[in-house]
Amino acid sequence: MSKLRLRISMSLDGFVAGPSQSVDNPLGIGGMRLHEWAVPLTVWRSTHGLEGGEVNESTRVVEESLTNIGATVMGRNMFGGHPGPWDAKKPWKGWWGVNPPFHHPVFVLTHHAREPLGLEGGTTFTFVTDGIERALKQARQAAGGKDVSLAGGASAGQQYLAAGLVDEMEIHLVPTLLGSGERLFDRVGADLHGLELVRTVATPKVTHLKLARR
Amino acid sequence: MSKLRLRISMSLDGFVAGPSQSVDNPLGIGGMRLHEWAVPLTVWRSTHGLEGGEVNESTRVVEESLTNIGATVMGRNMFGGHPGPWDAKKPWKGWWGVNPPFHHPVFVLTHHAREPLGLEGGTTFTFVTDGIERALKQARQAAGGKDVSLAGGASAGQQYLAAGLVDEMEIHLVPTLLGSGERLFDRVGADLHGLELVRTVATPKVTHLKLARR
Repeated sequence: MSKLRLRISMSLDGFVAGPSQSVDNPLGIGGMRLHEWAVPLTVWRSTHGLEGGEVNESTRVVEESLTNIGATVMGRNMFGGHPGPWDAKKPWKGWWGVNPPFHHPVFVLTHHAREPLGLEGGTTFTFVTDGIERALKQARQAAGGKDVSLAGGASAGQQYLAAGLVDEMEIHLVPTLLGSGERLFDRVGADLHGLELVRTVATPKVTHLKLARR
Repeated sequence: MSKLRLRISMSLDGFVAGPSQSVDNPLGIGGMRLHEWAVPLTVWRSTHGLEGGEVNESTRVVEESLTNIGATVMGRNMFGGHPGPWDAKKPWKGWWGVNPPFHHPVFVLTHHAREPLGLEGGTTFTFVTDGIERALKQARQAAGGKDVSLAGGASAGQQYLAAGLVDEMEIHLVPTLLGSGERLFDRVGADLHGLELVRTVATPKVTHLKLARR
């Protein structure tokens, strides 16, 4: 069955984004620290159109998270730009430039309807206004039997976790504190809906915790 | 130099105790789940006067946390019993019975003065009303060159972390959610005061993260 797989970087104090997120600082204050482990990796750089990089223990975790993904679901805040209705004159096209690193259909949770957006490299953004379950259903159809990646941010992760719809979760736990910002596990409750720790990869910069149903 | 070493079990959502802590439920609702990894261990059982048990990858972590400790500091809530002034007629003597598992001087942070309490096995409880720095100083003196264990709970951990006084931190991260309760990293800010991840021990039930100054 097509799984919904959440992968997200989280600080030791549970934040997946820092405070004061904005167009100029999409990850919030200090939020970039959550991703410093990933940026030097060749596998991360190549998906973002960058050359060079290194291979380390985290490489296979990132490779695994990219494998067998046929579609992505993300929250409006992760797609970004600005809150509220879309600006028809200057429509926001995501953080990722003309050739985003997804290369498959992406479904964006939003309260504001908008025509689909096709960019280079096979990435299409479809804007879903009728809820998380409907977005997941559309993503599963588009994924053609492959899995669906839940890319974040915090609010989208919270909603799918609270509804018990996440089948697999890879938490990249970074040994740093952000102090405030957006927590992954706010409003999620105490139920992991059968997700158990099935694999840990320990590195000096990050601890990769994989939870899944056995 | 004598180090202050915090060791504490924490849920994936950052809680070190569940909600609704009470004399009948000192760890709060669900809080016992944070300690299920430790209770079966021979090394844990023997320090609590229990026989039997098992040896696994967590054994050396617990053994390490018990090594070279000459005194303990803990918060009033961890010593427990009831909030407010001590009951002179029926003084609370801790959760641990007549022979507590410390076997060395313990310093309890409290707003309410009280005579020291000596129990069997070398454990003495001294009640410190003039702040965390003074309690640490007394504990260091009593430790005779050995390290000081910071046993918790959440509030005591927060205060020493925020003040930058913790020299070493062993977090036993348990892959479960409590949903609410007491967070270790509330009111701590974004500064780990030089603590870095120096060792990870991964097991199916718990991930042991050791942070220290390099």
